[in-house]
Amino acid sequence: MHEEAIMDVAHLGHLELMTPKTDESLAFFRDVLGMTESGRVGNSVYLRGWDDYERYSLKLTAADAPSLGHAAFRARSPQALARRVEALKRSGAGVGWVENELGHGPAYQFHDPDGHLIEIYYETEWYEPPPDLRPALKNQAQRFPARGVNVRRLDHFNCLAADVKANREFFQKTLGFRLTEQIVLDSGIEAGMWLTCTNKSYDFAYTLEAHGVRGRFHHITYALDSREEVLRAADIFLENGVPIETGPHKHAVQQTFFLYVFEPGGHRVEVANAGARLVLAPDWKPIVWTEAERLKGQAWGLKTIESFHTHGTPPLPGERSP
Amino acid sequence: MHEEAIMDVAHLGHLELMTPKTDESLAFFRDVLGMTESGRVGNSVYLRGWDDYERYSLKLTAADAPSLGHAAFRARSPQALARRVEALKRSGAGVGWVENELGHGPAYQFHDPDGHLIEIYYETEWYEPPPDLRPALKNQAQRFPARGVNVRRLDHFNCLAADVKANREFFQKTLGFRLTEQIVLDSGIEAGMWLTCTNKSYDFAYTLEAHGVRGRFHHITYALDSREEVLRAADIFLENGVPIETGPHKHAVQQTFFLYVFEPGGHRVEVANAGARLVLAPDWKPIVWTEAERLKGQAWGLKTIESFHTHGTPPLPGERSP
Amino acid sequence: MHEEAIMDVAHLGHLELMTPKTDESLAFFRDVLGMTESGRVGNSVYLRGWDDYERYSLKLTAADAPSLGHAAFRARSPQALARRVEALKRSGAGVGWVENELGHGPAYQFHDPDGHLIEIYYETEWYEPPPDLRPALKNQAQRFPARGVNVRRLDHFNCLAADVKANREFFQKTLGFRLTEQIVLDSGIEAGMWLTCTNKSYDFAYTLEAHGVRGRFHHITYALDSREEVLRAADIFLENGVPIETGPHKHAVQQTFFLYVFEPGGHRVEVANAGARLVLAPDWKPIVWTEAERLKGQAWGLKTIESFHTHGTPPLPGERSP
Amino acid sequence: MHEEAIMDVAHLGHLELMTPKTDESLAFFRDVLGMTESGRVGNSVYLRGWDDYERYSLKLTAADAPSLGHAAFRARSPQALARRVEALKRSGAGVGWVENELGHGPAYQFHDPDGHLIEIYYETEWYEPPPDLRPALKNQAQRFPARGVNVRRLDHFNCLAADVKANREFFQKTLGFRLTEQIVLDSGIEAGMWLTCTNKSYDFAYTLEAHGVRGRFHHITYALDSREEVLRAADIFLENGVPIETGPHKHAVQQTFFLYVFEPGGHRVEVANAGARLVLAPDWKPIVWTEAERLKGQAWGLKTIESFHTHGTPPLPGERSP
Repeated sequence: MHEEAIMDVAHLGHLELMTPKTDESLAFFRDVLGMTESGRVGNSVYLRGWDDYERYSLKLTAADAPSLGHAAFRARSPQALARRVEALKRSGAGVGWVENELGHGPAYQFHDPDGHLIEIYYETEWYEPPPDLRPALKNQAQRFPARGVNVRRLDHFNCLAADVKANREFFQKTLGFRLTEQIVLDSGIEAGMWLTCTNKSYDFAYTLEAHGVRGRFHHITYALDSREEVLRAADIFLENGVPIETGPHKHAVQQTFFLYVFEPGGHRVEVANAGARLVLAPDWKPIVWTEAERLKGQAWGLKTIESFHTHGTPPLPGERSP
Repeated sequence: MHEEAIMDVAHLGHLELMTPKTDESLAFFRDVLGMTESGRVGNSVYLRGWDDYERYSLKLTAADAPSLGHAAFRARSPQALARRVEALKRSGAGVGWVENELGHGPAYQFHDPDGHLIEIYYETEWYEPPPDLRPALKNQAQRFPARGVNVRRLDHFNCLAADVKANREFFQKTLGFRLTEQIVLDSGIEAGMWLTCTNKSYDFAYTLEAHGVRGRFHHITYALDSREEVLRAADIFLENGVPIETGPHKHAVQQTFFLYVFEPGGHRVEVANAGARLVLAPDWKPIVWTEAERLKGQAWGLKTIESFHTHGTPPLPGERSP
Repeated sequence: MHEEAIMDVAHLGHLELMTPKTDESLAFFRDVLGMTESGRVGNSVYLRGWDDYERYSLKLTAADAPSLGHAAFRARSPQALARRVEALKRSGAGVGWVENELGHGPAYQFHDPDGHLIEIYYETEWYEPPPDLRPALKNQAQRFPARGVNVRRLDHFNCLAADVKANREFFQKTLGFRLTEQIVLDSGIEAGMWLTCTNKSYDFAYTLEAHGVRGRFHHITYALDSREEVLRAADIFLENGVPIETGPHKHAVQQTFFLYVFEPGGHRVEVANAGARLVLAPDWKPIVWTEAERLKGQAWGLKTIESFHTHGTPPLPGERSP
Repeated sequence: MHEEAIMDVAHLGHLELMTPKTDESLAFFRDVLGMTESGRVGNSVYLRGWDDYERYSLKLTAADAPSLGHAAFRARSPQALARRVEALKRSGAGVGWVENELGHGPAYQFHDPDGHLIEIYYETEWYEPPPDLRPALKNQAQRFPARGVNVRRLDHFNCLAADVKANREFFQKTLGFRLTEQIVLDSGIEAGMWLTCTNKSYDFAYTLEAHGVRGRFHHITYALDSREEVLRAADIFLENGVPIETGPHKHAVQQTFFLYVFEPGGHRVEVANAGARLVLAPDWKPIVWTEAERLKGQAWGLKTIESFHTHGTPPLPGERSP
């Protein structure tokens, strides 16, 4: 691929999550996760971690059922945005431009092969904290909230896809993402892929949808500064009656120290820490995990919980909420 | 600047440190820091942290006095290397190609305006651990040593320079580094600059040389996974009689959680943790610290120790070793 | 000494701190330290850490100047209380019984040789959290607040004394405290003593008053669960404009990982962690630190800040507030 | 009960574990857990954590099958020892005095109602580190090893018992232990009890033996300084091929942050951290967990692994080693 493509996407910018329980979801993200409300338009509320440099990293929108509204990536430059839009148009995936969204400039929307709505934009609004949220150190986006879990910044998201390989190739070819790890079953079917456009070892992941539906969402992840903070988050979730799905434990894949819970709207939410792990090699050789290795469970032996393979949003017809 | 330049350097690769006490320095890096010896040629020993993906990140070479042998950056691709070499030749800073170095391909050497020797290369040898150092998880370069401080990977280095601004501009223009933070005195003189070519908030720093000499080295830094590990490192340094200069504490600049010690050869060595802090914005606006802010000391109020402004390697004539 | 005396005092129960800035002090302890208000009588407010099993561990009382109101120890049993009161009466230090205090039964008050007011009681009110503060786990006194520093429980206090030795002997003889560490100057003068009645390595300390005044208070300390939490506390103090005196760092004496700040009323407040350190030996041999060792500074080399030797509450005439 | 009994036992001193794989068990405790060998007599090796103040906390003895050799408690004084021996003799549980054991004076041995061999002693040998193991800080028993898991000190042990209640009452009545938590099934049968003689919330536990055998051992636990160290221990166990049974996770009972592995001889070994949790109340009201609460699993929802209820040492006839 042309060198430029590899660098044209700068980072994951934000997610829009649809929720049927707006007040409860907002309370979860603001009071339990410790996020800050930084905007409100129509039936959407915008939220941010204290280290997100843009105005927000989460748009929470009222809806009948939980689902991914869209995911958004920021391009590296206006030229990079133009190049990627051109490539997206050529690919046939393009939907069109969206303007007048709070906090960022024109965004070009498209569908990945599984049908998730994604967008890419360049112009953005840097967060300007109000006086009571100004940080003591000027190299920090916002004052540390000292409330709840205190999530630092959006880290990654995970979607389900019926054809992981097709989605992987789409993101690699049209957007220049790099594959760092993947799971390939004995049948040759790809069961998971982790892609990055930064030095983080992944900015998003797609794992296998086993239920013949399309466009489902698996989880959103916020970064914490240490494994100890993930453990403390577990204490806080317990105190707040937040259903913990699994963790804290360490994934073998990507070695992320994870904790998965369900927010009131039904979405799976992860808080995680990767220590000082980065992928610095420009020619990183993707790690391929086999079916047998996947069956071994997580890094320290925890068996992967069944719901992790089946629950997504929107839930399947008749599926019970967690 | 042309977009390509910004992405042509992939990351810091390794440092060569000259030491007058080869055995003691080796023992420090191997037994106290927990690094692994991964090569030996002539009077040089090569060492690595457990997460360095290349064969080594430190070359320790016998010499009469401690100094920086050279610092080495890895280019993103052969084309990127060619582009940067061309720019370096044009700048007049070029020294020439070095071949046959252990662990990497041809490297083009040059001097920064202060006279430090730097090189850039692309071809590299990925570390292949011997059987007893194979990790349990295949996405890890080497087994976790569980010995001493267990430094994870090379993080950054710091040089002194009589003209910080000239060096900053040189690295920005010829190599595409981005400035994330700097200190500018009331006189307009730049007293410090932090540059990056990755999503780390800096890959190296230059601070002001106050003694009219050139080419001096300030410190090398290895990354640890948590602040708790930096604290434990302090315990281990204390037990091993390693002189601690200052820390653990948190820098206001870059918010690094730092600990500085002196290795037996005389070099300042830092172990540090940055939590989940990354610079993701492609258009990051450099943070400028004033003289008054610098005088306020470190983040939590620790006054900057005098030796931090004066000691470098080689030491000044007549300077006592720490 | 008779065996009983050694076990008659069970633990430190609470402190009363007088403050000239009641609203600001209350805001500090409640909003920044994360304590919970658990009572209010007259011009006193009662506060607790989330793991204090009694109703409160801090009584904050309005006054013209900051000082220690009193410190209170809980006896192991009614018989133990009676024995200690008898010993206190014999010693001539007794003041008399206090009744009708919120949260505990009759307390016998006395003065230590330096004039601090201390009391001992047995009957106590176990904290009963209101519904919204009930913990998820029934073996915990109160819900984890997830607000500010989240101090866990009262750990110890420190007073100044003109004659440390006289105070040490008083507490050992009349109350059965055990000496675990002390500082003895070359002159033979005792400059510090750390006493315990539990398996904690100290429940309070007295250090040398250098200014010819009596009855001054040095600091109150709340325990946190990890060194990482002490570091995070430093971040939170910085964000809240709380003056940090010194730390985080590790004391050589007792190896406490400390952080000292000043609350708005003028008192020095410490948050600290001791890891898994306990004194289990019933015949522990006191550690004696010399004047030379004391001059070496803290464990990792930090020089002891001058104010640590001079500032106490009430402040000296003409002393500036921190 | 008479007040004296409550205080006569000072703390858990050491365990003797029988192992059929002496070399492998020794390598595990020394190289992986980071313990120090401090004696060797006949076919026994003595080991210690870096903060154990006595000469050793573990005696490892060659045998045909893994089992608990004995557990040993230190009395508070010679008088306390005499009082407890008298009570043990009266109870009919006494076995007799053992002399000439390495590291401690005469020990009186007895059987608990389930048949485990226990002893109590007073005289002990304080550990004197050889020059290369002397700590930098004089209030520490031994230099921090910086090797493997670096266990700090013996924390507690756990036995299985067919009649938990009978054992609980035996230890409460004859030795003065205090009950802090217990599990009582709907049938009224006690399924677990946690007893203490210190301010730690337990010094040992007995849980229900479901297989009609007697005298089996469940696990030995060493304390680490932080939850982060328990997580790092999991990394190290993984690298060393040590079978992890379950964890790291947080028990609901006692809130211990646990990690269970199997040493080569077959014994379950735990490393754990309790944060700053202590039981300071002299009149602590035991926490009673119900059968329903026990079924809810661990604190953050982890289901208790089946082997945790069945595996003990010696293993059952025909039971596979982990």
